[in-house]
Amino acid sequence: MSSSVSPLAPVHVPDLPVIAGVRLATAAAGIRYAGRTDVLLALFEPGTTAAGVFTRSKCPSAPVEWCRAHLKPGTARALVVNSGNANAFTGKSGRDVCKFTAQIAARAVGCKPKDVFLASTGVIGEPLKAQAFDGVMEGLVANAQPGDFLAAARAIMTTDTFPKVATATAKVGKTKVTINGIAKGAGMIAPDMATMLSFIFTDAAISAAALQSLLKESVADTFNAVTIDGDTSTSDTLMIFATGKAMGVPLVARAADPRLKDFKKALHAVLANLSEQVARDGEGARKLVEIMVEGAVSKASARRIAMSIANSPLVKTAIAGEDANWGRVVMAVGKAGEPADRDKLSIWFGGIRVAHKGMRDPGYDEARVSAAMKEPQIRLKVALGLGKGRDRVLTCDLTKEYVAINGDYRS
Amino acid sequence: MSSSVSPLAPVHVPDLPVIAGVRLATAAAGIRYAGRTDVLLALFEPGTTAAGVFTRSKCPSAPVEWCRAHLKPGTARALVVNSGNANAFTGKSGRDVCKFTAQIAARAVGCKPKDVFLASTGVIGEPLKAQAFDGVMEGLVANAQPGDFLAAARAIMTTDTFPKVATATAKVGKTKVTINGIAKGAGMIAPDMATMLSFIFTDAAISAAALQSLLKESVADTFNAVTIDGDTSTSDTLMIFATGKAMGVPLVARAADPRLKDFKKALHAVLANLSEQVARDGEGARKLVEIMVEGAVSKASARRIAMSIANSPLVKTAIAGEDANWGRVVMAVGKAGEPADRDKLSIWFGGIRVAHKGMRDPGYDEARVSAAMKEPQIRLKVALGLGKGRDRVLTCDLTKEYVAINGDYRS
Repeated sequence: MSSSVSPLAPVHVPDLPVIAGVRLATAAAGIRYAGRTDVLLALFEPGTTAAGVFTRSKCPSAPVEWCRAHLKPGTARALVVNSGNANAFTGKSGRDVCKFTAQIAARAVGCKPKDVFLASTGVIGEPLKAQAFDGVMEGLVANAQPGDFLAAARAIMTTDTFPKVATATAKVGKTKVTINGIAKGAGMIAPDMATMLSFIFTDAAISAAALQSLLKESVADTFNAVTIDGDTSTSDTLMIFATGKAMGVPLVARAADPRLKDFKKALHAVLANLSEQVARDGEGARKLVEIMVEGAVSKASARRIAMSIANSPLVKTAIAGEDANWGRVVMAVGKAGEPADRDKLSIWFGGIRVAHKGMRDPGYDEARVSAAMKEPQIRLKVALGLGKGRDRVLTCDLTKEYVAINGDYRS
Repeated sequence: MSSSVSPLAPVHVPDLPVIAGVRLATAAAGIRYAGRTDVLLALFEPGTTAAGVFTRSKCPSAPVEWCRAHLKPGTARALVVNSGNANAFTGKSGRDVCKFTAQIAARAVGCKPKDVFLASTGVIGEPLKAQAFDGVMEGLVANAQPGDFLAAARAIMTTDTFPKVATATAKVGKTKVTINGIAKGAGMIAPDMATMLSFIFTDAAISAAALQSLLKESVADTFNAVTIDGDTSTSDTLMIFATGKAMGVPLVARAADPRLKDFKKALHAVLANLSEQVARDGEGARKLVEIMVEGAVSKASARRIAMSIANSPLVKTAIAGEDANWGRVVMAVGKAGEPADRDKLSIWFGGIRVAHKGMRDPGYDEARVSAAMKEPQIRLKVALGLGKGRDRVLTCDLTKEYVAINGDYRS
């Protein structure tokens, strides 16, 4: 496993303020990793609302099923997350571990098991021992403190090389509220509801139904527009918890309420920030790649073409090799199955047009393009010339390190 | 570029017999590679019928468009193939090169340009100079001889590490006929009509319509069931040429004619052999991987699940690392979007059941499975337990060499 921090890691890590009504604790339960934390507990004051989106995998993990089953009332008192084992493909014993974990957390917290949400990330198919939580739960509840979101982000990392946090403020009515988010990513990342795990905390007072609607809307162009390897996890979980504990904050029931306009923007910014960090920490990544597709017949068509490019191993290895290989971009556009006219296609790398209307740009200058390809951030633009559909997705390059990380992860 | 031969290369390379009515010649035109042949000319006696299937890419190469436009009458007198440049995404000049190449070949052969078929493989997006063919065409026609199919297969290689040939015989009525085939593969291989380039030659006498029908039927479970990287080429071309020159061979007009039963079997064997060789020579491949899916709701569903597994970078890197990572297989089944029930899923690696009914097999023995994963050929079986749909696809592992080969291919 690679231990050095991704060269694409954000230079500035923000200090995350306290969120009234949220307390956090982490512990080292030794589930898989030695010498580091691997369990996160988040406690919420009574009255906290919750919403979530989950993987569309037909083989979801036990915690994903647990969360889905208990999401409906939209209330939450605790969140327990572990890294090192995904508790996926673990049969009845996996379901029993969920039930047991929720029960011991509920007992320690003083709530019902159904108000405890669960998430697990790590190896799939290995039994997760419930005793791991048993040994640390009382201590976690006793030690929970407002505030250390960076430690929380660290406890949920797997092959991530840096913890991912983001924060924003917004006005709801006249009250300032805060939104903090944490995420983990790295591999098995493809857009199908969310990345592996991300949790958002706010002191705003928003109904569960409105939260669900805001989350669903915002995820489409943030987490769902990021891909590392096209492999959708069994465990993708994105949840938001709203404590309503900001001083004087009004309760907002409907997502369409104009008082949520600023909150929506701030939530989107937090999700966009976290999802970009996921792309920046793609396994083995050395280049952040932004793919813009315009002139498609629709936004959905532009998304599918952008994803075909973003998931192409040949495009990704070319970028790793600092090669502006537009021929492979043409290939990826062609295989997407979406309307495209080869002879109207233009392609840019790093703002330099390399191909125009179906052939190499007449002004193509290899040296200039090569220089642009050495940058750590590559913007790849494709203009289809068919309509007004446009979209943007983020990905990273495919390097030998990705192969190395994934060739000996389990063993 | 890797220069050593794939460890998965066939040990036995068959001698290909002469096909009456087919003459071959190769030349070194210096299109891209130095010190090797890069143009193949095949000449066919008058009366030769032809059929072909091509890439479904929306951005096909100029030669693919040329072949499609002239396939209809179903007659062929010559085939010109070059390696080193795909003549794809080359605009009007690419179309002009096709026209010019067909014209000079037709002039040298004494036929019409529309009876000349063309294929190009190599870099996409670089202009192909027509003069390259001009300098060698007369010599190719003059030197064409019955027979050296291995040299023909060598001339069309790009990143292939070994030439791919196969042969079979069949009875049509009472006459023995021969089927020879050549192919090139390596990268940008995904099932969407055919692999990059493959050409089949026979002395049977079969109508173009019947050939087309046989080819289409046989490609579904051979070339279309192979994937290296999920990247569909702009240039995929599979053509068959039937000279009708076997002594006393009857002309067969309909694909359903019972006299073609044996021929169909032999054609299928040749296509299966060549497509397996393509998987064996996947870029950087160290393991041939056969994926069997059974118990799906239909064959089409089994195919999509098998392809989801075969194209998963995480499954492929795990196999490269000799890790029987069934968790990633579960992930790939789950993301396929096809009916699947996690708790009915069983998975085998190398004939050893590692997971059963939604969890790790109770008799799981790491040492035994690890030994099986060291084999150069890995059989991965998934049983869904839902229905009777089954399918099989071939792929290879994803190694650092794939990344190395594709990170500096163009430059």
